[in-house]
Amino acid sequence: MPVYQLYHAEELKEYMVRFFTKLDVPTEDAAIAADILLAADLRGVESHGLIRLNTYYGDRLRKKLVDPTTPLTVLHESACALSLDGGNGVGLVAGYRAMTRTIEKAKTAGIAITTVRNSNHYGIAGYYAMMALPHNMIGVSFTNAQPLVAPTYGKKAVLGTNPIAVAAPADHCRPWVLDMATSIVPIGRVTVYDKARRDLPLGWGIDSQGQPTTAPSDVLKGGALMPLGGTDVMRGYKGYGLAMLVDIFAGVLAGASFGEKVGQPSSTRTADVGHFFAAISIDAFRPIADFKADMDAYLQELKESPKAAGHDRIYVHGEKEFELAEQRQRTGVPVMQPVVDSLIENGKQIGVEFDLSSLGQVSDDE
Amino acid sequence: MPVYQLYHAEELKEYMVRFFTKLDVPTEDAAIAADILLAADLRGVESHGLIRLNTYYGDRLRKKLVDPTTPLTVLHESACALSLDGGNGVGLVAGYRAMTRTIEKAKTAGIAITTVRNSNHYGIAGYYAMMALPHNMIGVSFTNAQPLVAPTYGKKAVLGTNPIAVAAPADHCRPWVLDMATSIVPIGRVTVYDKARRDLPLGWGIDSQGQPTTAPSDVLKGGALMPLGGTDVMRGYKGYGLAMLVDIFAGVLAGASFGEKVGQPSSTRTADVGHFFAAISIDAFRPIADFKADMDAYLQELKESPKAAGHDRIYVHGEKEFELAEQRQRTGVPVMQPVVDSLIENGKQIGVEFDLSSLGQVSDDE
Repeated sequence: MPVYQLYHAEELKEYMVRFFTKLDVPTEDAAIAADILLAADLRGVESHGLIRLNTYYGDRLRKKLVDPTTPLTVLHESACALSLDGGNGVGLVAGYRAMTRTIEKAKTAGIAITTVRNSNHYGIAGYYAMMALPHNMIGVSFTNAQPLVAPTYGKKAVLGTNPIAVAAPADHCRPWVLDMATSIVPIGRVTVYDKARRDLPLGWGIDSQGQPTTAPSDVLKGGALMPLGGTDVMRGYKGYGLAMLVDIFAGVLAGASFGEKVGQPSSTRTADVGHFFAAISIDAFRPIADFKADMDAYLQELKESPKAAGHDRIYVHGEKEFELAEQRQRTGVPVMQPVVDSLIENGKQIGVEFDLSSLGQVSDDE
Repeated sequence: MPVYQLYHAEELKEYMVRFFTKLDVPTEDAAIAADILLAADLRGVESHGLIRLNTYYGDRLRKKLVDPTTPLTVLHESACALSLDGGNGVGLVAGYRAMTRTIEKAKTAGIAITTVRNSNHYGIAGYYAMMALPHNMIGVSFTNAQPLVAPTYGKKAVLGTNPIAVAAPADHCRPWVLDMATSIVPIGRVTVYDKARRDLPLGWGIDSQGQPTTAPSDVLKGGALMPLGGTDVMRGYKGYGLAMLVDIFAGVLAGASFGEKVGQPSSTRTADVGHFFAAISIDAFRPIADFKADMDAYLQELKESPKAAGHDRIYVHGEKEFELAEQRQRTGVPVMQPVVDSLIENGKQIGVEFDLSSLGQVSDDE
């Protein structure tokens, strides 16, 4: 039963700003990066938030494997298309600036697409898609990632969990936000089962011979995750296809790495992660008021549709996350004790002490 | 063991042109519609080809439920965005003309998106995505469809099998073509199991109470298909999200029907199906030669990656279909005997006799 300490959201964000600034990230960029990581913890995607502050960002910045100034270069530009080089900078900052420019272009052109090559891990894909919402646009965000998923009939991890995120505004209802890995589960979920000595549901992963396994260690040691859909009989080749779709848009089209070569930055090579962003201005197609009214009707129709036996609520995508974020803004953001311990440890090393006061303690049974 | 008659592809196409023309579809439009239906049969998607010539097209045209002239109207237009009303015409023709205009726009603007409202069933989504390939563009095509799929925790079919199709060109390798329903299987697959008195794999569908079932009749009578991913533990809410994504782009953004209201045309209402098309000119982002070389490398990497025990080949999307289409162009297109019988029967009624000579007969064990 893991123990979590609760912290004020704003205080966590301020801490992360100090952390990034200390590592030579410009103040404005530090605020961007901190906001994106905090959004992950607020929305219940803990795997992409504070837990990665040091491993994915701090550690790599300290080792000079990532450029703290995130120098973006324009490779190609037209009214609605933009191709950027991320300068091996902070993925969160490259993503934010790329989506900001995408939205600016879509204000004039109606539609815009931006690709980014030579970038790094950019956190939750959904954050960038949601940036389009206040502008009455549909937002789209894809990224490729280091290989963890095997193709159908394969046994080696050659594809990332390559997420798809799309956000669309509504009127009275909350916006619709899909933010999904194209594997069944992320690797972090398998690690949780491994630590808890629990069997995996059959189909989440394969062993080193490519056979479905219920042993988390089989997946973690030489095995791979399965794409959405799982086995062939359940049409796992569709999830495999979606992973490729993301890699073609975010990797190949961007001129970034793709497939097995997408990596972690090291002393000998950059990660060369690729991103893809799109913004679609709704009023280029129909009046925004009509679109939003129809979105409300659509979301209500799904939520009110008849429930399966044993269930009393149907969710639409993003709903749980909005509710959780609102609650956590009020009552505090839970951070696992081991994460708190490493924040304290890393903070000391870097010289930015993690000295926030816990608002209390909660425990969780997973 | 169903029996199939083999026919020359070109002769089948010529027959369909005569069929559509007889039903007041202009000759040019008839050739378009016939080519798209034939492509389905060539590519092994028999469920979307000749088998639907009468039920989805002929019958509705005869009953004046679909306008044979497919009068398209422009609702909104800018350099890269186009919103069309399909005039309750032939979906195949509306789709073809909409994608043609999308590609024309993308030649100038670099990117273009077209939505179509007030349309009808448009056949295989992949056809339109593939139209972008000769222009060195990535093509995208979505459509919504009549409700057959239940949302996660629901028990009623309120979503279509809403397909996603994306095509990207390569150099020496064949193009990559993903064309997938966002349900695990289409309803036609369940019908095949029902007729063969076989149990369904658990997870393809639910009964009228929302419980997973292996009985095809449970799914067909008051049940529903499950979205890609299946049950909650296998992350079926992702497939549910993809079905909504398609409905938001092809239905809500287009100003067409969405969710449960997408229908079949009747004497009291039109089907009001919605489509979404996008074309992305690769050279707006990077030189086409570089993209194609990377696509070759990517496709080869996947095909050559280590195989799971019991498998000796990894496929990339579209590969099987290209091989099958080439073979069927040479040796003939198989048409199931009951479909041949109904072509003969309907042909007599309409006055366009189905008088093609079979090239031979084959049987299949599914």
